[in-house]
Amino acid sequence: MSPPSAVDIEMKGVTDTSAVSIPDPLTFKGVPGWREKMAKMPTGVAPACSSDMFKSPACYTKPKAKRFDHFLSLEAKSRKASTLKTAAQYLRNPGMLSLGGGLPSSEYFPIEQLDIKVPTPPGFTPEATRESGAILHSGKHDIKEGKSLYDLEIALNYGQATGAPQLLRFVTEHTELIHNPPYADWQCTLTAGSTYAWDTALRLFTERGDYIMMEEYTFASAAETAWPLGLKALALPIDEEGIVPEAMDELLSNWDVKARGARKPYVLYTIPTGQNPTGATQSAERRQAVYKVSQKHDVLIIEDEPYYFLQMQPYSGEGAAAPPPPATHDDFIKSLVPSFLSMDVDGRVVRLESFSKVVSPGSRVGWIVASEQIIERFVRNFEVSSQNPSGISQLVLYKLLDEHWGHSGYLDWLIALRMSYTDRRDALLHACEKHLPRDIAHWVAPAAGMFHWIEVDWRKYPGVAAGKTREVIEEEIFLSAVDHSVLLSRGSWFKADSSAIMEKMFFRATYASASSDQIDEAISRFATTLREQFGL
Amino acid sequence: MSPPSAVDIEMKGVTDTSAVSIPDPLTFKGVPGWREKMAKMPTGVAPACSSDMFKSPACYTKPKAKRFDHFLSLEAKSRKASTLKTAAQYLRNPGMLSLGGGLPSSEYFPIEQLDIKVPTPPGFTPEATRESGAILHSGKHDIKEGKSLYDLEIALNYGQATGAPQLLRFVTEHTELIHNPPYADWQCTLTAGSTYAWDTALRLFTERGDYIMMEEYTFASAAETAWPLGLKALALPIDEEGIVPEAMDELLSNWDVKARGARKPYVLYTIPTGQNPTGATQSAERRQAVYKVSQKHDVLIIEDEPYYFLQMQPYSGEGAAAPPPPATHDDFIKSLVPSFLSMDVDGRVVRLESFSKVVSPGSRVGWIVASEQIIERFVRNFEVSSQNPSGISQLVLYKLLDEHWGHSGYLDWLIALRMSYTDRRDALLHACEKHLPRDIAHWVAPAAGMFHWIEVDWRKYPGVAAGKTREVIEEEIFLSAVDHSVLLSRGSWFKADSSAIMEKMFFRATYASASSDQIDEAISRFATTLREQFGL
Repeated sequence: MSPPSAVDIEMKGVTDTSAVSIPDPLTFKGVPGWREKMAKMPTGVAPACSSDMFKSPACYTKPKAKRFDHFLSLEAKSRKASTLKTAAQYLRNPGMLSLGGGLPSSEYFPIEQLDIKVPTPPGFTPEATRESGAILHSGKHDIKEGKSLYDLEIALNYGQATGAPQLLRFVTEHTELIHNPPYADWQCTLTAGSTYAWDTALRLFTERGDYIMMEEYTFASAAETAWPLGLKALALPIDEEGIVPEAMDELLSNWDVKARGARKPYVLYTIPTGQNPTGATQSAERRQAVYKVSQKHDVLIIEDEPYYFLQMQPYSGEGAAAPPPPATHDDFIKSLVPSFLSMDVDGRVVRLESFSKVVSPGSRVGWIVASEQIIERFVRNFEVSSQNPSGISQLVLYKLLDEHWGHSGYLDWLIALRMSYTDRRDALLHACEKHLPRDIAHWVAPAAGMFHWIEVDWRKYPGVAAGKTREVIEEEIFLSAVDHSVLLSRGSWFKADSSAIMEKMFFRATYASASSDQIDEAISRFATTLREQFGL
Repeated sequence: MSPPSAVDIEMKGVTDTSAVSIPDPLTFKGVPGWREKMAKMPTGVAPACSSDMFKSPACYTKPKAKRFDHFLSLEAKSRKASTLKTAAQYLRNPGMLSLGGGLPSSEYFPIEQLDIKVPTPPGFTPEATRESGAILHSGKHDIKEGKSLYDLEIALNYGQATGAPQLLRFVTEHTELIHNPPYADWQCTLTAGSTYAWDTALRLFTERGDYIMMEEYTFASAAETAWPLGLKALALPIDEEGIVPEAMDELLSNWDVKARGARKPYVLYTIPTGQNPTGATQSAERRQAVYKVSQKHDVLIIEDEPYYFLQMQPYSGEGAAAPPPPATHDDFIKSLVPSFLSMDVDGRVVRLESFSKVVSPGSRVGWIVASEQIIERFVRNFEVSSQNPSGISQLVLYKLLDEHWGHSGYLDWLIALRMSYTDRRDALLHACEKHLPRDIAHWVAPAAGMFHWIEVDWRKYPGVAAGKTREVIEEEIFLSAVDHSVLLSRGSWFKADSSAIMEKMFFRATYASASSDQIDEAISRFATTLREQFGL
């Protein structure tokens, strides 16, 4: 591999790679070496940056993404680059004195130092952190003093919509290491959380009156983001593995513009891993099939992936212990179901990434991976809205993930999280097996995520004969459970199409926040509720 | 004053106050006493909260705001409360075990402690902070351990769109102490920065095709937020005191729906203090006049106020020293020009507040003050977009502003900032007086903000006779300045209506980020540019 330079960085323009020797793909071990060879980290205030600064040369040997101009909304199409940010180009001139931009001077930021205490792998528990944890210091002028590539002087000032290059590098490398998208010009941008990214996506890719495709049961907030924009849901039938591709194909093939009063939908919102609320995880084959249908009908896939690293150990059944953790990082990565991004030869996937379930929701920092064209439109929007995610959050994440853990330590953390969530899920499944009446309650062990989806056979409910509807029965059971001091979520809250009449009835339980004892007691209370209500 | 209770909190419903003894208004000294009497701070994960928990009883003796349903967009009108957040009501039942919401457990937040080093009043400089600064500790379980009202367990988890009650209390009290809005049901909500608040405001109050009113020169990014939404600017004529109310009245009185192809505008975006780019500050009388015109034409005033506390000492002229700082907090507050919010008897003002210019732009935390009806619509939007500002930022701001400084220490900081910006502005003005050719360069000393607006008499430019336009001349001067290694902003970048032909030509200089020496050198270079270009 020849030493990268400004010329390599420009390789993204190269589509005929026959004359170029094909560089090795980036590896975990290769990251430090690659970092040394690449262009210098920009460490000024709000420096322009992009993933192109951080991707390895192997990326640019691939073909470029398709153009998706036809997906852009009127709003997205008419958004121009920021005038004032464009003027920043002159700041690169050596010796330039600027009275141009209104950036406050760092002497007016009243925080001189920020320290965090964090775990050191492999001691991830709060107890281990007390003993072996590290204190990460961040001073105001660490960059000038040669102590760090990122500091408070920069983090406390305005930043770019792409995020700070220091953290953008980490997520770009992470993306290449885990997903290695099969086209050349993919990029990342940080976002102020993935809920915000989803709201922005709707404004970029839809117009009032459009339909968007969603799993028939979906994350209620994601749906509630869409409705006030005048959007309607085309609810896609699902099974234990999520979206049924044949059903999606049929719905799109038979789309009747006149009858529907809307153009054929081209935005698919999906939570492929540990879906909320059903807990379903699409297998690799399922994803390939959904991707093929998306190619056939020219669909943009927005994969919302907060639970990707909450893929758990296989469920070993009642009373059995979970299999041992992945022996190596490679085993761990191989155990993960491949993302849509990893099979995205066209550049039609927008991957919404989140630290909320694996580090901290309160950071309000996530990121997006998509083609350069699409990322650019997101960034133009962020510039005049969120501006950039919190610099304080970015600094904390950078110190923890990049300076302290590195990619390898982050994987250790994610493996520990996997084992921990496996225990939690198993506790819930064991409680269900122990308490719930099997003649009316059915479930599939979730392979990922935070949610367990319990079907309750409403047709056996005593009031059915007297004409009670599924809706009424669901409400009666829910309120009776509340009377028994246990709160589950009603399945109907998650209907993508609120007017749809569903055949089955579900309740959603989470194992994310309660302890094993609490889970057992809560499920026992729910079982009592069901027995009472069903007269069992 | 009777001890406040849940009943007092409900006083906001009372409009006939004849039977109620009128309570004293909140004072800086009264804050601790009032806090002791009021309802307990909610310290759980993502607790519901509102400013009503923190306003003093004096607020509720005032009449309620008008309703502004007719200002709401289709999007704003159709947004409902979040289903899942509504379900949280059952969590209040004692003994409830929840398997409902998918909130991660705090043991999975890998930050056990966060410490910041900050200045202690009156030692605000970095040097003083090194000597007398305080280290503020934040542990994961400070709340349970009785050490603080806010901690990492809460800050690192999801929060409410209103922001954490801990910080919401501070901004609510600050708002009452400084602005004391003259109607009862005002509220605050935190936001992920005021640029984001402005983007959201446009989506709440406008439809594609509408005009919005802006100062004829305005913050370029604010305008660029609006254009892709299909909005047009009605550029309001300005003088040294900003918006000319008579001109605004005339434009609205003569609005011709047919000729304009749009309904009469009802959203006014204004930066009343230290306006960007002109540096103009509207006097109290000017604001009263603009408010009256807004009442007459039923206009919603969005006051964007990042520079409110960058009101400086009066300019004493060349060579003279600045007057001494305000002797007391009361003197300081009296020296501030009253906000639109403080004169808003109708509840027609939406005040966008920011910590960016007075604490740190990188926090990406700001807040909005408006009537309960309007705040509720903002919050509904935030819930499905930003969710909440960074919890890490909120924690840092709370520790600094509330626990360490308190309202009184924050005022000390703001006074120090005032004196410091006065010095910076004076350095710029002295440099202008020293270097700039007075026959072609004219300016007014800015009373607030970060910006100095320099008029250059383009009609005296050598190329005018040969037919060079103002635009071309502005560009030639700008590029020539770049060649002389000094960057100013071109006035035309800030035109609210990009198609407007302006009579005058301006350059904007900031004194926010450069040192006095740099400012002197930069203005000297600009003077050289002007002399060369004008052949002086």
